[in-house]
Amino acid sequence: MKPLGPIPAGFEAIDGELAIGGRTASAWVEEAGGTPLFLYSQDLIRRRVELLRQTMPDQLRIHYAIKANSYHPILELMRTLVDGFDIASAGELTMALEAGQDPTLISFAGPGKRYEELELAIRHGVTLNLESEGEAQRALAIGDRLDIRPRLAIRVNPSFELRGSGMKMGGGAKPFGIDQDRVAALARSLISAGAEWRGLHIFTGSQALDALAIIETQANVLDLAARLTAEIGSPLSHLNMGGGFGIPYFHGDQALDVETVGSALADRFASLPSELSGTEFAIELGRYLVGETGVYLARIVDRKESHGQVFLVTDGGLHHQLAASGNFGTVVRRNYPAAIATRYDAEPEEEANIVGCLCTPLDRLADQAFVPRAAVGDLVAIFCAGAYGASASPSAFLGQGPARERLV
Amino acid sequence: MKPLGPIPAGFEAIDGELAIGGRTASAWVEEAGGTPLFLYSQDLIRRRVELLRQTMPDQLRIHYAIKANSYHPILELMRTLVDGFDIASAGELTMALEAGQDPTLISFAGPGKRYEELELAIRHGVTLNLESEGEAQRALAIGDRLDIRPRLAIRVNPSFELRGSGMKMGGGAKPFGIDQDRVAALARSLISAGAEWRGLHIFTGSQALDALAIIETQANVLDLAARLTAEIGSPLSHLNMGGGFGIPYFHGDQALDVETVGSALADRFASLPSELSGTEFAIELGRYLVGETGVYLARIVDRKESHGQVFLVTDGGLHHQLAASGNFGTVVRRNYPAAIATRYDAEPEEEANIVGCLCTPLDRLADQAFVPRAAVGDLVAIFCAGAYGASASPSAFLGQGPARERLV
Repeated sequence: MKPLGPIPAGFEAIDGELAIGGRTASAWVEEAGGTPLFLYSQDLIRRRVELLRQTMPDQLRIHYAIKANSYHPILELMRTLVDGFDIASAGELTMALEAGQDPTLISFAGPGKRYEELELAIRHGVTLNLESEGEAQRALAIGDRLDIRPRLAIRVNPSFELRGSGMKMGGGAKPFGIDQDRVAALARSLISAGAEWRGLHIFTGSQALDALAIIETQANVLDLAARLTAEIGSPLSHLNMGGGFGIPYFHGDQALDVETVGSALADRFASLPSELSGTEFAIELGRYLVGETGVYLARIVDRKESHGQVFLVTDGGLHHQLAASGNFGTVVRRNYPAAIATRYDAEPEEEANIVGCLCTPLDRLADQAFVPRAAVGDLVAIFCAGAYGASASPSAFLGQGPARERLV
Repeated sequence: MKPLGPIPAGFEAIDGELAIGGRTASAWVEEAGGTPLFLYSQDLIRRRVELLRQTMPDQLRIHYAIKANSYHPILELMRTLVDGFDIASAGELTMALEAGQDPTLISFAGPGKRYEELELAIRHGVTLNLESEGEAQRALAIGDRLDIRPRLAIRVNPSFELRGSGMKMGGGAKPFGIDQDRVAALARSLISAGAEWRGLHIFTGSQALDALAIIETQANVLDLAARLTAEIGSPLSHLNMGGGFGIPYFHGDQALDVETVGSALADRFASLPSELSGTEFAIELGRYLVGETGVYLARIVDRKESHGQVFLVTDGGLHHQLAASGNFGTVVRRNYPAAIATRYDAEPEEEANIVGCLCTPLDRLADQAFVPRAAVGDLVAIFCAGAYGASASPSAFLGQGPARERLV
């Protein structure tokens, strides 16, 4: 038996079934027209943003990194809840604009921005987080050509990284940002070239669950921002402090203590160095805002045994849930939180492997899980499906196509 | 420095540039309208099939497992070159039919076939490789209801597996096929229920480079098929022996010696047990037929340094080349074969990291590669891109969208 990850708070049972937004999984599937189906909860998203508003200092702006989930109805909702969007491509810019987001509340980071992407962003007044000196030159040249004053920030590759981070995005040689010792010179040249100086973006890692690690990193970020500002010699209007807040996916993971993070940050804000006295601060979060608010539902289409093991074969799989299958950024596969949605309050009674429908041994959703006895027709739920699910999975693989999605 | 994988035979240089099908990479990119671009070579595909025709015994049928690459022009070409298609979903069935394939030359394997998929396949006279007793019941019931005699084979989960296989698909508890000791009973029940008995499918693994391992596995497959046929007590019309032929991706990989495999198989065919005297044999290959015939081209959009390392940032990435990035079925990331396409015959002179444009540290195409000095505007080539590239990657990730594809 292998343990399942912890089911996020906010899901309940109705008539013995997993329910979300006051209706059962089956009812949502019927309404959506079938499986596989991603359900995202408006209520849980609102509650998550509310939790941050309550625990983080008032002056901290909260940005949504839309790469986590760019489903149109989620973007429309998020636009009303957060203070800005962070995007990573022209495709995401289009999605953000289609969701009605004010482009001046959008910032664009990403190491491989094409020329046309830079131009589109500058035309719309989006803030560019510059990733290299070469990109800076291109942005200034485009601004000149269009006669638009580009809004430019610098993404810093700091010398420190976020301890306990699932993915390092700072520290050492990285494709992201500009090494901290070259930032001041570049910033001065941008300012003297007439760009609108939008400050610094210091993103250090993601998926951290340790409050103390995040507190330490945020302190480092503020110190570095103050030092760089002194070096630059111009006021720092904006500081994007990155995000990195993680969610529990696996057995034994403890939820991040955001209260402790928020209170430490409030203390720091209360005694800011003079360089940062006029600065507007933001954090950017993706996974933390939406990850736990979504569930992926697939139907069991076969139940079989092989060498004494039970296999529950679903009509879903890694083509929608690459990360849950263990094939995206993880070395050792562990089980995401999962359940038999249609037997949600039944007692577990057997060990079963929940797999996808793809003809590859990579397509596993839960290994040796202890679950209620399930049959063909039952629904399986994989939790923590709100971030990096639908959009980060190879939906065309084996001719399958995308899953349905609903914001409920 | 980390070594790159071996560049497959058949690529050449014209005017110092990588060329395919007699034209340079730049010329193809211009014609296609931009990058990223997958180019697949008709000529290399034809040569690969020809190599198999020459080395394998005459009576061995060659099937194409279209999951490796289901790009429409490739399916149209393959239909004329091979003896049948193997599919894994109704989506792939539709693609095969659209490419003009005769449905009676199609077989359908996959552990999670939905009811509607079974029905569609039976209506078209496609051979179903049954994966469980439950699926067998459903297929028979659909045949009854439609008054069509279903064409049924059994996919066997053998007790042995393919040594040296990158992915095990036989041996031990598996979601694939029916454990070998339950096959005879099921086959007899299918035959007595009036189904058209289409024989056995014994698939054991994939991506093996060791000829002796494949020879041993093929011998095991033939022995098992003979034993099961004796147990079943009816002639075995068809035996799909699986595939498993690998291609060299990484430094040190040696190409599979198909001549040795073919000659050993010819010896076996010359002294078949009586149970298999009337059997038609097939192998199914995907990656082996198309993997080395494709190249992925991306343009360098930034060249930057960080902590003394060079990063060549391209407009491509893991959203088209998940496996090359090391995030699909591999534990330790190694470099695929790669080159600076526009400086193909230049001497290597620097160590560079070739990365994708996605804002994630997972997006790496070649780590610490020794390459000619490249600049913004140069094209990068990632080889072995003909299989499990475009269709097996999360093309919508970060709002990027699919790559262009051309068969040339």
